[in-house]
Amino acid sequence: MPKLIIQKYGGTSVGSVERIKKIAGRIVKTHKKGTRIVVVVSALGGTTDELINLAYQITAAPSEREMDMLISTGEQVSVALLAMAIHKLGREAVSLTGGQVGIVTDTSHTKARIVDINTKRIKAELKNKKIVIVAGFQGVSPEREITTLGRGGSDLTAVALAKVLKADVCEIYTDVKGVYTADPRIVPEARKLSVLSYEEMLELASLGAQVLQSRSIEVAKRYNIPLHVRSSFLEAEGTRITKEVKMMEGVLVSGIALNKNEAKITICDVPDKPGVAARIFKEIASGNVNIDMIVQNTSRTGSTDISFTVEKTELSRATKVIKKVVSIVGAGGVIQDNDIAKISVVGVGMRSHAGVAARMFGSLGEAGINIETISTSEIKISCLIKKDKAEMAVKILHKEFDLGKKVKRRQS
Amino acid sequence: MPKLIIQKYGGTSVGSVERIKKIAGRIVKTHKKGTRIVVVVSALGGTTDELINLAYQITAAPSEREMDMLISTGEQVSVALLAMAIHKLGREAVSLTGGQVGIVTDTSHTKARIVDINTKRIKAELKNKKIVIVAGFQGVSPEREITTLGRGGSDLTAVALAKVLKADVCEIYTDVKGVYTADPRIVPEARKLSVLSYEEMLELASLGAQVLQSRSIEVAKRYNIPLHVRSSFLEAEGTRITKEVKMMEGVLVSGIALNKNEAKITICDVPDKPGVAARIFKEIASGNVNIDMIVQNTSRTGSTDISFTVEKTELSRATKVIKKVVSIVGAGGVIQDNDIAKISVVGVGMRSHAGVAARMFGSLGEAGINIETISTSEIKISCLIKKDKAEMAVKILHKEFDLGKKVKRRQS
Repeated sequence: MPKLIIQKYGGTSVGSVERIKKIAGRIVKTHKKGTRIVVVVSALGGTTDELINLAYQITAAPSEREMDMLISTGEQVSVALLAMAIHKLGREAVSLTGGQVGIVTDTSHTKARIVDINTKRIKAELKNKKIVIVAGFQGVSPEREITTLGRGGSDLTAVALAKVLKADVCEIYTDVKGVYTADPRIVPEARKLSVLSYEEMLELASLGAQVLQSRSIEVAKRYNIPLHVRSSFLEAEGTRITKEVKMMEGVLVSGIALNKNEAKITICDVPDKPGVAARIFKEIASGNVNIDMIVQNTSRTGSTDISFTVEKTELSRATKVIKKVVSIVGAGGVIQDNDIAKISVVGVGMRSHAGVAARMFGSLGEAGINIETISTSEIKISCLIKKDKAEMAVKILHKEFDLGKKVKRRQS
Repeated sequence: MPKLIIQKYGGTSVGSVERIKKIAGRIVKTHKKGTRIVVVVSALGGTTDELINLAYQITAAPSEREMDMLISTGEQVSVALLAMAIHKLGREAVSLTGGQVGIVTDTSHTKARIVDINTKRIKAELKNKKIVIVAGFQGVSPEREITTLGRGGSDLTAVALAKVLKADVCEIYTDVKGVYTADPRIVPEARKLSVLSYEEMLELASLGAQVLQSRSIEVAKRYNIPLHVRSSFLEAEGTRITKEVKMMEGVLVSGIALNKNEAKITICDVPDKPGVAARIFKEIASGNVNIDMIVQNTSRTGSTDISFTVEKTELSRATKVIKKVVSIVGAGGVIQDNDIAKISVVGVGMRSHAGVAARMFGSLGEAGINIETISTSEIKISCLIKKDKAEMAVKILHKEFDLGKKVKRRQS
């Protein structure tokens, strides 16, 4: 059986008629080599936001079922146009909605989870030598209600199809060349990584390097699906994401991530009693506020401070919920800080090396950058610092861990 | 069982967020009276043309299957928005795509015919007291491919639903108050007709009074479904279209229609032999040119002229096809005339009255308007005249047949 590739193109890759034609050319070129191809496409750049905006002009609280009905049209438009562009190049192609493919999800509208994918239609079309173009981001519930998978859902569609179709690789096309050791706009000597582990990619994604949706990386990791993040507009290899990365040298850190879109909330003088923290976060969760870093230090006085970060867009909603909690649990008050940045070093290498934290804190300290909050995972250390020091901190850490230097890593 | 109304709103009725809100208010008001309502909606004004334009930017010959995939999104957007607007007013509503309803069509993409409608889902939603909002113009083939019903297809969706659901009435909402005796922009004293027969409406529709798609009137006629053409923005009664209209007085003519969007093509010196006309129109049909009036007079010289009209937008394509035919059948040549208007008088009354033609030709002649071509049906007489005389002719005929005068007609 010839090689099977899943290719996913994001909104910027199909942002205009010209770009759709370009993508079509690229797909046809690969198909002529005898490869079988399933393409997953997002909505034309900006379309989803325009549709959401229309809905909010109608009502402040649109029904989630109707929201899915509305925004799923975005992908339906792009798959049809891409199929036409491929036909124009003389190649057979067929576009399919999530429902036509048979991507069955649960009924959680706007954030549905895939429960099953029927592969019959796609396999039949592939057998007829057709290029199959699937509308990303969408599925249908068992009752054939249209559902969507949440932001970045097209990545998930691609990875899930790669799994059920046993694809050789899942290629994620984007407007950057791959995953970098740091944002090249901040650190000019930042290097494109040629390979990366799922774990590292997960940490980088959740830290704001928005090339790949976290849930899709989790699925790829669970089923060991090789991912390849690469540019829609260049032929060059991008970054391959695989199971485990064998280090030829002692690489500790693979990249520096920066996120300036969060704000910090601190609840002061929280009574240090069992169940209080649980009470607080239960209230926050039921207010539908997504929180990121949570930090609480040991109490020595009978009360403690609890800090956490939220997306800036959710700050006012979060503060409202929290003010309610403060009086319920008898805490001292709430402080919010809009002026922070989260900087993180990520790398599987730090699992077995203790010195990374010391080097990170040391180099920031030497540069006079104050660390306000620290949180760590097995392969990541994140610090909150003042926002105006963010770019400087990225540069310092990139240098400290020698990330500009070419190193040899290989897939296991 | 409470009354069941099908309401169809066209593109201009849902042309903006404000209009969608207004329509929602109207629907809710009726629903509060205890009426069961199924609403059929077209795409937001202009959307379908925008999508078609996108397709033609990709390729000059888009696949019809992909075209349906593309343009069916227009109605999906409007049903979702209308459902949201109804929710906002505190009423339950659910939007459904053609596929979700179970509007099954044949596989003729872009001009599919409805073969079956499953009423299960709609009936269940109506039973739950929901306002059901159906995407017009679309269906699915037995293989669940998305199809569309051709221009004006939302009218057909509405009428077909009225039939299978045994609705009490099918209301067609539009931007005019109803069907008029003539275009009120030309004849200020033109009167809104309160009732009209299916036959008359059919002739008026095919003659350019674009308030209702012809196929949908045919279906309404076949199954005797009461139609009510009325304004989206006013409460007043519009025009009711029913089986037979009993005349209280001897009404001969119910309206004057004008169509300036056609051009005339004449094939000269066609050999008067059996099979030649068939050969010509077979060729034209296979060239996918839609033709309207066909006129051929008796031959007295061994050859004859054949004239017919086509939509102006199809003129260049038609001429190309016809030039080929001319040489095949050995005709003398082709003349095309862009400068014509088709004026028609319509009325069931003329079935039993011979004098209508004489009065029509006489009054036009007196005014110095030359009649180039004549064609008649049982309840209609159409003439081609010079375009610059068109408005004058409408005024003359409106007066000749006393259409400004209020007459009593009643439904049988």
